Amino acid sequence: MSSESVKEDCLAWAARDPSGVLSPYKFSRRSIREDDISLRITHCGVCYADVVWTRNKHHDSKYPLVPGHEIVGIVQEVGPNVSHVKPGDHVGVGTYVNSCRECDSCNDRDEVSCAKGSVFTFNGVDSDGTITKGGYSSYIVVHQRYCYRIPDGYPLECAAPLLCAGVTVYNPMIRHKMNEPGKSLGVIGLGGLGHMAVKFGKAFGLNVTIFSTSESKKEEALSVLGADRFVVSSDGEQMKALSKSLDFIIDTASGDHPFDPYMSILKTGGVLVLVGFPSEVKFSPASLILGTRTVAGSVTGGTRVTQEMLEFCAEHKIYPKTEVIPIQYVNEALERLIKRDVKYRFVIDIANSLK
Amino acid sequence: MSSESVKEDCLAWAARDPSGVLSPYKFSRRSIREDDISLRITHCGVCYADVVWTRNKHHDSKYPLVPGHEIVGIVQEVGPNVSHVKPGDHVGVGTYVNSCRECDSCNDRDEVSCAKGSVFTFNGVDSDGTITKGGYSSYIVVHQRYCYRIPDGYPLECAAPLLCAGVTVYNPMIRHKMNEPGKSLGVIGLGGLGHMAVKFGKAFGLNVTIFSTSESKKEEALSVLGADRFVVSSDGEQMKALSKSLDFIIDTASGDHPFDPYMSILKTGGVLVLVGFPSEVKFSPASLILGTRTVAGSVTGGTRVTQEMLEFCAEHKIYPKTEVIPIQYVNEALERLIKRDVKYRFVIDIANSLK
Repeated sequence: MSSESVKEDCLAWAARDPSGVLSPYKFSRRSIREDDISLRITHCGVCYADVVWTRNKHHDSKYPLVPGHEIVGIVQEVGPNVSHVKPGDHVGVGTYVNSCRECDSCNDRDEVSCAKGSVFTFNGVDSDGTITKGGYSSYIVVHQRYCYRIPDGYPLECAAPLLCAGVTVYNPMIRHKMNEPGKSLGVIGLGGLGHMAVKFGKAFGLNVTIFSTSESKKEEALSVLGADRFVVSSDGEQMKALSKSLDFIIDTASGDHPFDPYMSILKTGGVLVLVGFPSEVKFSPASLILGTRTVAGSVTGGTRVTQEMLEFCAEHKIYPKTEVIPIQYVNEALERLIKRDVKYRFVIDIANSLK
Repeated sequence: MSSESVKEDCLAWAARDPSGVLSPYKFSRRSIREDDISLRITHCGVCYADVVWTRNKHHDSKYPLVPGHEIVGIVQEVGPNVSHVKPGDHVGVGTYVNSCRECDSCNDRDEVSCAKGSVFTFNGVDSDGTITKGGYSSYIVVHQRYCYRIPDGYPLECAAPLLCAGVTVYNPMIRHKMNEPGKSLGVIGLGGLGHMAVKFGKAFGLNVTIFSTSESKKEEALSVLGADRFVVSSDGEQMKALSKSLDFIIDTASGDHPFDPYMSILKTGGVLVLVGFPSEVKFSPASLILGTRTVAGSVTGGTRVTQEMLEFCAEHKIYPKTEVIPIQYVNEALERLIKRDVKYRFVIDIANSLK
């Protein structure tokens, strides 16, 4: 990399060390290539992954680290091969910005399952060896394949959380046929992911039960999110009364919790999909075997299902509930996220605060 | 129950207490009803479940307890509604002898998943309140729905292990599409269930890898069972070399073992089916989530898939490898089973030894 081409024109906030404290930072993005799109970022959602990697929880953080993988913005410039968007269009970038584009998964537009591993939007090593930097920044340059059209009229601040939280729950719900009207869905945890699972569940015509550790979210869950039932998971009697009653559970909780009580709530043949990240998964084999049950994992989604999800949200008027913040508030926001003190997703107003 | 109808003409071996020691015992079976078949038992396989319940491991054993749920024999008498078999025919009874016959699962001939619970062949409580008694006995009376035709010419001593061990692996292999030629299958544990999984795997055209704790079974596994690869699971290097290489794993091991190393051997989207009964299932969420993997449980199978499996075995000349024993040897056999000292299934020669 010759120094002559480097112009540090990308404004950002970066963590410098495992304290995870973010502060202003400048760096350069690559020049636009023939399949690239350059977008001016207007909003970026705040995901728990931003906590994990700014604080080096997985012992692989590369500093300075610019987090953010729920990115939306406005197209500024496109390479000569780009035809599906043009300057001025609203677009988004999710959790990965590259993949091998040759394997079965990539050919199926399920790039998140790329055999060689997709390149994460931040803290990833891209094919040219550079370390990727995320959406807490003023612009990003990305191959068109990993850039989504935001449907006309869909609010940009609402689009941001769809690109990780939204697709993380939408994808397994589709894959495991949780979109069959009349079926019953349990949602564990009512944060960024969980509240989207409730919204999708109601849009799919499901009977939705929320399991939460705290009674405090009950009224809003029922009246605003439209859930059918709210259960405080520590209430053994309530849990027992639901024995073998649900077709599916989507588990969005990242805190540790027992699995057997939830599995006993699944009908025979029921499926629990894990999208949260507890420290371990542990249950009795009887919970799995005697009910012919399934526990499955899932992580975001490929470009096909992500684009479908965006269009589904526009069509069904599904909007994440957000708390829009300036970039200057982000350190406090990450602290509040750790304490689960957010309804339900922080979104950074990059356009108006990162200057 | 009036005493006048009781004739204690069924010879058996029963456990009397949690020592699990079996000894001769006599009791009465019900008189034949209009949908019943009475069969003279010729063989009964020895399943680990026989250890579990004779020794009251699940704290629900009802003594005297006559174990055995891999039952084959010859039809002696049929009720007036029975048309699909006649006296002299070879038939079998598996792990359950009754179910509600009304729920969705029963209507789908998946009676093992009966919403009200299927009635186990021994130590179960039947709809008339009697405690069921299993196949370590001279005859059994069973509703025709739970009685399978053994294909003509199929050896009876080989048919016995199919009715639990066989269907326990066959059913999830079909359900999870492990019968697609060219795909790769891992089999954990090489006992009664595991060796059947290898045989089915080869019949389905799969590339089969056996994971075993002991090198001692290697030669036979490759040359006799026809597995493609044999891996000693404690060999970290061998395990690592297989990273992300298998489509499926069927886990038949009842001993405790780590799950993460096996899950890392599954391709993205791979499925591990648990049919063994370790004391717990524990793994990192990353093993599940980052590879979009699935862990599923399964228990025997309904009457439809059981009959299909019997016919598949006859057609493809799949025969369990058995060690045929007299009933007088059964206590020693159960001890050897605990020590995994059997290749691969004990079958009691009831006809020639229980007198």
